[in-house]
Amino acid sequence: MSMAVNTIPGFYFTPTDEDLITFYLKPKAMRQPLPWDGILEKNLYGDNATPWVILTENDWEISRQTARAYEDSVSKDEMYVFTKLKKIGTVRFGRVAGSGKWNDNQPFKYIKNRQGEIIGIKKIFTFKVKGEKGHEKMDHMEKGHWIMHQYTLAGVSLVQEVKDSDYAICRIIRDLSKCRTNVAESSEGQSRLDIDLNN
Amino acid sequence: MSMAVNTIPGFYFTPTDEDLITFYLKPKAMRQPLPWDGILEKNLYGDNATPWVILTENDWEISRQTARAYEDSVSKDEMYVFTKLKKIGTVRFGRVAGSGKWNDNQPFKYIKNRQGEIIGIKKIFTFKVKGEKGHEKMDHMEKGHWIMHQYTLAGVSLVQEVKDSDYAICRIIRDLSKCRTNVAESSEGQSRLDIDLNN
Repeated sequence: MSMAVNTIPGFYFTPTDEDLITFYLKPKAMRQPLPWDGILEKNLYGDNATPWVILTENDWEISRQTARAYEDSVSKDEMYVFTKLKKIGTVRFGRVAGSGKWNDNQPFKYIKNRQGEIIGIKKIFTFKVKGEKGHEKMDHMEKGHWIMHQYTLAGVSLVQEVKDSDYAICRIIRDLSKCRTNVAESSEGQSRLDIDLNN
Repeated sequence: MSMAVNTIPGFYFTPTDEDLITFYLKPKAMRQPLPWDGILEKNLYGDNATPWVILTENDWEISRQTARAYEDSVSKDEMYVFTKLKKIGTVRFGRVAGSGKWNDNQPFKYIKNRQGEIIGIKKIFTFKVKGEKGHEKMDHMEKGHWIMHQYTLAGVSLVQEVKDSDYAICRIIRDLSKCRTNVAESSEGQSRLDIDLNN
């Protein structure tokens, strides 16, 4: 299915926040069929869920077939993943993911539909490696910078027959430009070529 | 063809600069078939080419079927258009468009392919209505703010059999939020709802 889409140049999977909730997360939580089968399902949390272990190069390769390239960096990639949140007690969620933790460091945002009703919540996380400061930084630099935009259901999305409300859909962004072993950053030089052209 | 694409939610025509040059502008200039027929052809320049006259509400409606909505404003739309540049002499182009003029007010940018070769040039224009200052501003406010990203062939794109090198492909952005008659800006309030959520 993803192949058929990708045959038209310039078309990419660039869903809006509302698309992710309405067309993907909600049917997933309601155990209904999805309009496209290109979103992977992965356990992003737990003792073995270090992101660069569970998301393989093959996963990135598949995702690249429908994802729009980041124009500011050739070393940046994004991938969409369904995951189940791990509840700790009744209100908190476990954020441990293998060798580190997904830290939320920004305020969340309500996602609304066109009628202005709240349909979901978007939160942004950054992956931090466990351990002492020096080690943490080194490990980080080797695997790049990892960011996650997490979408969960809220508001009117929850009044219907939602069977798995702990599902989240995540946009995972891997930035290898902040990785010591990667030296490719060819697009960065481009903007420096900008000079004035008198028509 | 555009209809078939639009049946998969989350997929939009969000071409990169390179896509526009390689898959659309270059074949157009070489009189080769295009991979998708959804890009309109319009005369954006000349005495009758006021943008809100030549781009009809029906054109915007068609374009909305494949365009990704701007998440920062419900009053903003974009459309892709092929046009022919009007040469004045050998180096300059005419920028008059009906009741006004497309003004370029920013430095241009070279577009490169993955091999680092220059394949095109991107320039940004703003539409300015002719006439005295006060009138200009008023007219502007009534029709919204119009921006154009213009892509033309350059560098290695011109070494092949280009028959119509005066073709440009343009992304036209119409922002009606700066229009007095339009009061809908519902998405603007959304970001103010952001508050901290302790997981």
